[in-house]
Amino acid sequence: MSALEQLFNPQCIAVVGASPKPGSFGGAVLRNLTTHYRGTVYAVNPSYQEVEGVPCFRSLAELPQVPDCVGIAVAADLVEAVLRDAAAIGCKYAAVFSSGFADTADEAGRRRQASLQALARELKIRVLGPNCTGFVNVASGAACNILPSIVDLPMRPGGVSVAGQSGALGYVVLQAMHRGVGFGKLISVGNSADIDLADVIDYLVDDAQTKCIALLFESVPDARKLSRALRRAFEQGKPVVAYKIGTTDAGRQAALSHSGMLAGSAQAYRAMFLRNGVVQVNSFESLLETAIFFSVFGQVAPTRTGIGIISGSGGSVVMAADKSAECGLQLPPLHDDTRSALAQRLPSFAAIANPADITAESIRDHRMYQECIEIFARDPAFASVIVLMPSAHGSAAADRARAITELSASLPVPMSLVWINEWHQGIGSGIYDACPTMATFRSLDRCMAAHQAWFAYARCRAQWLRQVPEPVPNVAIPRGDALRRSAQLSEAESKRLLAGIGVNTCHGAIVSSAEEAMQAADAMGYPVVVKAESEFIAHKSDIGAVKLDLADAGAVRTACAQVLQACQQHHPELGDVRLSVQRMVPTGIEMIIGARVDPDFGPLVVYGFGGVLVELLKNVAVSLAPVPRQEVLDQIAGLQMAPLLQGYRGFDPVDLGQFADQVVRVSHLIQQNPWMAEIDINPIILSKDSAIAVDALITMQA
Amino acid sequence: MSALEQLFNPQCIAVVGASPKPGSFGGAVLRNLTTHYRGTVYAVNPSYQEVEGVPCFRSLAELPQVPDCVGIAVAADLVEAVLRDAAAIGCKYAAVFSSGFADTADEAGRRRQASLQALARELKIRVLGPNCTGFVNVASGAACNILPSIVDLPMRPGGVSVAGQSGALGYVVLQAMHRGVGFGKLISVGNSADIDLADVIDYLVDDAQTKCIALLFESVPDARKLSRALRRAFEQGKPVVAYKIGTTDAGRQAALSHSGMLAGSAQAYRAMFLRNGVVQVNSFESLLETAIFFSVFGQVAPTRTGIGIISGSGGSVVMAADKSAECGLQLPPLHDDTRSALAQRLPSFAAIANPADITAESIRDHRMYQECIEIFARDPAFASVIVLMPSAHGSAAADRARAITELSASLPVPMSLVWINEWHQGIGSGIYDACPTMATFRSLDRCMAAHQAWFAYARCRAQWLRQVPEPVPNVAIPRGDALRRSAQLSEAESKRLLAGIGVNTCHGAIVSSAEEAMQAADAMGYPVVVKAESEFIAHKSDIGAVKLDLADAGAVRTACAQVLQACQQHHPELGDVRLSVQRMVPTGIEMIIGARVDPDFGPLVVYGFGGVLVELLKNVAVSLAPVPRQEVLDQIAGLQMAPLLQGYRGFDPVDLGQFADQVVRVSHLIQQNPWMAEIDINPIILSKDSAIAVDALITMQA
Repeated sequence: MSALEQLFNPQCIAVVGASPKPGSFGGAVLRNLTTHYRGTVYAVNPSYQEVEGVPCFRSLAELPQVPDCVGIAVAADLVEAVLRDAAAIGCKYAAVFSSGFADTADEAGRRRQASLQALARELKIRVLGPNCTGFVNVASGAACNILPSIVDLPMRPGGVSVAGQSGALGYVVLQAMHRGVGFGKLISVGNSADIDLADVIDYLVDDAQTKCIALLFESVPDARKLSRALRRAFEQGKPVVAYKIGTTDAGRQAALSHSGMLAGSAQAYRAMFLRNGVVQVNSFESLLETAIFFSVFGQVAPTRTGIGIISGSGGSVVMAADKSAECGLQLPPLHDDTRSALAQRLPSFAAIANPADITAESIRDHRMYQECIEIFARDPAFASVIVLMPSAHGSAAADRARAITELSASLPVPMSLVWINEWHQGIGSGIYDACPTMATFRSLDRCMAAHQAWFAYARCRAQWLRQVPEPVPNVAIPRGDALRRSAQLSEAESKRLLAGIGVNTCHGAIVSSAEEAMQAADAMGYPVVVKAESEFIAHKSDIGAVKLDLADAGAVRTACAQVLQACQQHHPELGDVRLSVQRMVPTGIEMIIGARVDPDFGPLVVYGFGGVLVELLKNVAVSLAPVPRQEVLDQIAGLQMAPLLQGYRGFDPVDLGQFADQVVRVSHLIQQNPWMAEIDINPIILSKDSAIAVDALITMQA
Repeated sequence: MSALEQLFNPQCIAVVGASPKPGSFGGAVLRNLTTHYRGTVYAVNPSYQEVEGVPCFRSLAELPQVPDCVGIAVAADLVEAVLRDAAAIGCKYAAVFSSGFADTADEAGRRRQASLQALARELKIRVLGPNCTGFVNVASGAACNILPSIVDLPMRPGGVSVAGQSGALGYVVLQAMHRGVGFGKLISVGNSADIDLADVIDYLVDDAQTKCIALLFESVPDARKLSRALRRAFEQGKPVVAYKIGTTDAGRQAALSHSGMLAGSAQAYRAMFLRNGVVQVNSFESLLETAIFFSVFGQVAPTRTGIGIISGSGGSVVMAADKSAECGLQLPPLHDDTRSALAQRLPSFAAIANPADITAESIRDHRMYQECIEIFARDPAFASVIVLMPSAHGSAAADRARAITELSASLPVPMSLVWINEWHQGIGSGIYDACPTMATFRSLDRCMAAHQAWFAYARCRAQWLRQVPEPVPNVAIPRGDALRRSAQLSEAESKRLLAGIGVNTCHGAIVSSAEEAMQAADAMGYPVVVKAESEFIAHKSDIGAVKLDLADAGAVRTACAQVLQACQQHHPELGDVRLSVQRMVPTGIEMIIGARVDPDFGPLVVYGFGGVLVELLKNVAVSLAPVPRQEVLDQIAGLQMAPLLQGYRGFDPVDLGQFADQVVRVSHLIQQNPWMAEIDINPIILSKDSAIAVDALITMQA
């Protein structure tokens, strides 16, 4: 049994701070429990004999039994005393609703939270919150939650469990129960002093009722712990759909003032979600519908690559075709058998194709519609069938809804329905919403995006199942000279270090004068490059301290003078700067490999199209380090400019395998050497058979 | 009075083909009219005395009065006879519901439609349809429409009118009346044999009830007529929100089989919408909400640049901040006066900032909430205020809705509300939906995108109001030699022509041998470029027929041999190919100027970042030709790589004005010379003070 089962599926709950006062947390929790809960409830408050019809005791010590969970709704400064009382009677779990801890964003609040955290550990009592709205167990009705509106929710059990910081938004998701949608648990972690989102995910992975975990959050106290929990969910085959908010500067600012925790880097979160097979959505509306889809079909691995779309309205079919294309979904033509079976049933003016417009007349006959969907679902090219429902009228709509929902249980492939009218819950929509064997959407965009995510999730699972462990290179390197003058290695030092781990670099001769430079160039052969060699100049080309493609000794002399002058001008403090002479690497495709240490997730590796335009091109991918080789190849294939690497308009196809190997090595390098803060290899020039790092810079931790 | 006022606002309607048979079009129209219409209705059918309680006549000739509009619901082959009867009694308008015309996508159907069209013109009778669902005039209840579900609609007048091909999807939009939203007209043009979408737009521009026109369509018979109608709407200040479907290959395919008309190029439509100030949306859900917003606030020109956001839920504030940032909206900090006025009213734990989380407690007090919104709306930095409503419970929610809707009428800036729960029409939502002085959204994305469109629309109107006519250069050029061997001009010919209209080109010497090439190179000075000069080779660099940066005579000799060999290999049919020797243009930023003739909209000009990677970079803009200079500058500023042009990491800022002038000239060139099919100037190299076309190709119409 999971560690938190007793908390989230309690047989007996006590509410401390129970009060009949309007607006009180304790009173709201009691009303929610008396409305929905079938277990035992006790109220605790020395001032009352009874609250909301529940017997009220002076203290926890006087309760006739030990509750599985204590809900604490007292002032912040009284919480610790209640926790001690709970521990004294042997209670193991508490939900603290009180605010006034880290949420105040002042020192007193932070200290109070640290003290609560320490006490919980000392007492061996697990605490949800503080500043949380609590939880709702839909199946048992254990609505140990302060939101007063929960009394109105019809409790419909289902496969989606919702977890996050903000209880209010989670409750809003659960309002879909008014429409017929079912849920498992709703859990708000609040300030996460003890139990955090990772613990909740661990619990939900083991919870048989939960078929899909929906997350809505802005920040967590321990991002790597979250990553481990998500990894476990992935490996156990429990889909997670996440809406991570606070991804923009404005959003992070708002998040900080909301929860007092840093929201982290959106890029790093994206990389972490990718690694752990998390389905990331980018809107509140998508969270619910995508989670419903995965709760029903997350365990089904598509064996075909196409989608079949069927509707009674021509306009909706055009919209759906557009949206499929935008999500990269294939709409294969109908198989001959499908076509002839449909032709036997449909009028001549129906469009027997994929997408199919079987006309409004046909859908009025719900048996004929049922048959058409069945024929579609048997087409050998379709991994899934999508039915569009643009309007509903009269009793036929309800008959149709019953026929289609009944059919959905027996189809060989998943069936989803798009109710093309989010502003009207028309006749039959509630029947679709309540059906546990299909997924209902209110937007074509969200339906197609969920299908795209479904294919990606299945690919990710399949890759994981057949993966072989990759060798881990030993690339740990001593930091060396601890008393350096600069926080970064020079280009030559950086390249030497990279060459040592197998990254091909373009070495150069380090010289102190134009004369020496010309000699070196003569020796290595033209054309050459002249650069400043200094660990104090980070962006050499920006200040004119890089001269490319020098054809002869005269050009080298001029270049040396220009580079030295540029250094003098921009960095007069450096005095005499040394120069590096390198062979000019033949033209190829300029890529980048970078690495940095994220405060939440640790080392990340960045790779893609580089050169000086790297930040304008925005054609890079980010992965957690170390990165598996296949992830590098997959992510590069997803970049807009990827066709350039496969041979494009006069460009040779490049050795992408060699590049991927180097990305993998750099990812191990940053991971195994905690003294490194950043690695920046840009450009690394790819050609038919080589990948040569032309410039490189390693920055050290302060 | 508008030409179509009598049709869409009739006092008397006759329905020919009226029938009590279940599923009949005529019966459905009569039921819709008897339910909603306050005018006179007659049924026409020789088989009945009465249909649906309406007196039924044997023929139009027997009617006691001349109807303003005849609805025709007879078999396709009987339509013409009915039209003659209608004309005979002096009726001027008909709506033909019957299908079996161009919609059959066969020759017989197309012929039948052409014949109907000719007859309508001959009889001087204006025809809506055929194959249309008709129209609905909400204010008068004239629901001359075949959709049976219209009987159930509560008719609520409002400012949004909806027009398009598909009547079914338009009806689905009108279902928002169940929620309280009001509408003007719903008009389905069907096959557009006579009255098309442009005519309907012209009518709605003049219709005082219509405050915003919402369009949903895939194709029109005359795209330039549509463009003119949209231009008129823009100049008259009536906002148009359009969802153009059939924008992808899959969508176009589906559209063709749906309506038998080609859906056109998505790029060309986008350029046309941009020129005419049309607000383009990309989802069905956005169409309604964006149109509501513009029906209420389309006439308001924002005088500030920021947005203020206020909510009672911290999580929703974080989401909203993210979404604002994604749409490029500014969230300025609160003015000191705003801050102190809020601080006086709110509890200490509220986040007094922008976005503001005034806490759930505060929003329960609807007077306090009203005050907070008022304070926000007076902040001098806010052009608009957005209120987030994440959940609603109990009578407080209804009181709040009444307070906020009432307030919205008196605020100094527009107020919108986001009901953050599209799956639950909770308490109060209907009050917001029905309020004509504010806009309600059910998605943060759509709310922020509508605001973004609002700023853009206002900018576009302001530019139009202060525009001065630009000079029109005379760049008409005779086609010249009519009996050419090739469909395209050679590079030298193309450049000569472009130079003639003021495009700076890099001229070359045309030579026949390596010896001549070397002489020419010596004369012009190194480095040079050698290319094949032939009107039969379109992509010279792809076959290796361009050699750049040749430093001396020896390099020129080698290059000539290589180019000639490449031509021999790839185009043996050309025999001896001439060569062009050009000065190597110094490095700069490679741009493109292209032009082509769109089958729907005529000449278009394409411009942006070029070079061989143009199709991978996808950093180009498209405009209708001729293009105003300001549109070029605005569109370039919107390209992802635009910062490169302003001086970026060692690149000089370029002469963007000169480039824009050349784009304008090329747009006039394609427009004034109908013999040109395509112009492709790529690259045109931009530097600090020049813009030089290095390669150019003009293709002629066949």
